[in-house]
Amino acid sequence: MDVLKGDERLDYLLAEELRIIQSPSVFSFSLDAVLLAKFVYVPIQKGKIIDLCSGNGVIPLFLSARTKGQITGVEIQERLYDMAIRSIEYNALSERLHMIHGDIKEMPKKLGYGKYDVVTCNPPYFTTPSIEEVNENEYLAIARHEIMCTLEDAIQVSSQLVRQGGKVAFVHRPGRLLDIVTIMRKYKLEPKKIQFVYPKKGKEANTLLIEATKDGHPDLKILPPLFVYNEENEYTEEVKEILYGK
Amino acid sequence: MDVLKGDERLDYLLAEELRIIQSPSVFSFSLDAVLLAKFVYVPIQKGKIIDLCSGNGVIPLFLSARTKGQITGVEIQERLYDMAIRSIEYNALSERLHMIHGDIKEMPKKLGYGKYDVVTCNPPYFTTPSIEEVNENEYLAIARHEIMCTLEDAIQVSSQLVRQGGKVAFVHRPGRLLDIVTIMRKYKLEPKKIQFVYPKKGKEANTLLIEATKDGHPDLKILPPLFVYNEENEYTEEVKEILYGK
Repeated sequence: MDVLKGDERLDYLLAEELRIIQSPSVFSFSLDAVLLAKFVYVPIQKGKIIDLCSGNGVIPLFLSARTKGQITGVEIQERLYDMAIRSIEYNALSERLHMIHGDIKEMPKKLGYGKYDVVTCNPPYFTTPSIEEVNENEYLAIARHEIMCTLEDAIQVSSQLVRQGGKVAFVHRPGRLLDIVTIMRKYKLEPKKIQFVYPKKGKEANTLLIEATKDGHPDLKILPPLFVYNEENEYTEEVKEILYGK
Repeated sequence: MDVLKGDERLDYLLAEELRIIQSPSVFSFSLDAVLLAKFVYVPIQKGKIIDLCSGNGVIPLFLSARTKGQITGVEIQERLYDMAIRSIEYNALSERLHMIHGDIKEMPKKLGYGKYDVVTCNPPYFTTPSIEEVNENEYLAIARHEIMCTLEDAIQVSSQLVRQGGKVAFVHRPGRLLDIVTIMRKYKLEPKKIQFVYPKKGKEANTLLIEATKDGHPDLKILPPLFVYNEENEYTEEVKEILYGK
């Protein structure tokens, strides 16, 4: 099947008939991206949504099952952008899903300020370390480290792209909570809901989902905790439902 | 028994032989105070601990079961201070537990800067509303509303009292999370661990426990969630253990 290149696979997404092109050596989506796509508010019938640091397009693809609106993904790595494009075509979603190959920092000038109802972002988690520590695989290094964009870049750009009253949702590590809320408030994004994800009962949280409203009033809610694995180290029912649908 | 006045009761605290004087019309301790006394780090063998906005002394009394150190409570309402004094005497803890009747804002000048290993505080939760909205019962109004001290007062005073590297722990509502972390950082208190308390599974958190280190390095952990009630609306095993001991 010539939709695939090299070691790429065509993986299932949801119980629905979505498929996604992945490659073990280049990029595979993480549970975090899926949780963000489930967590974020989306308008159902219409609206404009943009996903930053989109990778192989997993968040736009997941969101396409939740909204009939227009979804744009932005990815700086051509190899990943190309995988996303082919996944969108394979799923016949080209009318509603669009990918842009470029730097997120150029998007407000290119796409306009305050034009989006929702912005999502699963940014690189690790601050830029010394050269030796960076993943030797360049694709993975750029996807995981703040090489091409810092957390502040991603939040600032999100704030510029979203309309007043629109939503911005990020997934990140709980250790960055204070940085995230401080930077969000700096850019007029008021955190409104946070959900912590715990690998299992009795463990510390290892993932943070946060949604803010542009120019919103302070009124933060902490949603019920989400557990990924049960005592038998299998996905919990909640996570199975998110991953595979009902 | 002449240790009690008016409608006061002598309630049990823990399975251990601690007792506490309470009054339905004046002040009864909340689960939040107990959770804070369990959550906070305390040195076991010695050390100096101070509890601000101490009410009837529930946190000092609980902490006395966890540490052999010196514990000071500060309460501005004479009626509550008086209940705390009598509870400490009743429990024969006067050698290790001391109450001060006064305004927390005067404590750094009175007690010294940076002299405490640990500061705890279960402050009034509600920002000062219009006169009509304040609880008509003055005792409860002062205990629950930011009339005598604001959140910022309490955090600033905590920062002044604690030594470098010492711990400051607060309990509050999750809606104030962003204010708390912002004000803590303003006063050089770096939040290190947070625990959210949920009334039951599937509900939003209604209580926030947070501990910061004076001049600490950023490294925030989100502890496992704590659920108060089970599906049958009884205390969970975890909470029973905290309230009544093993």
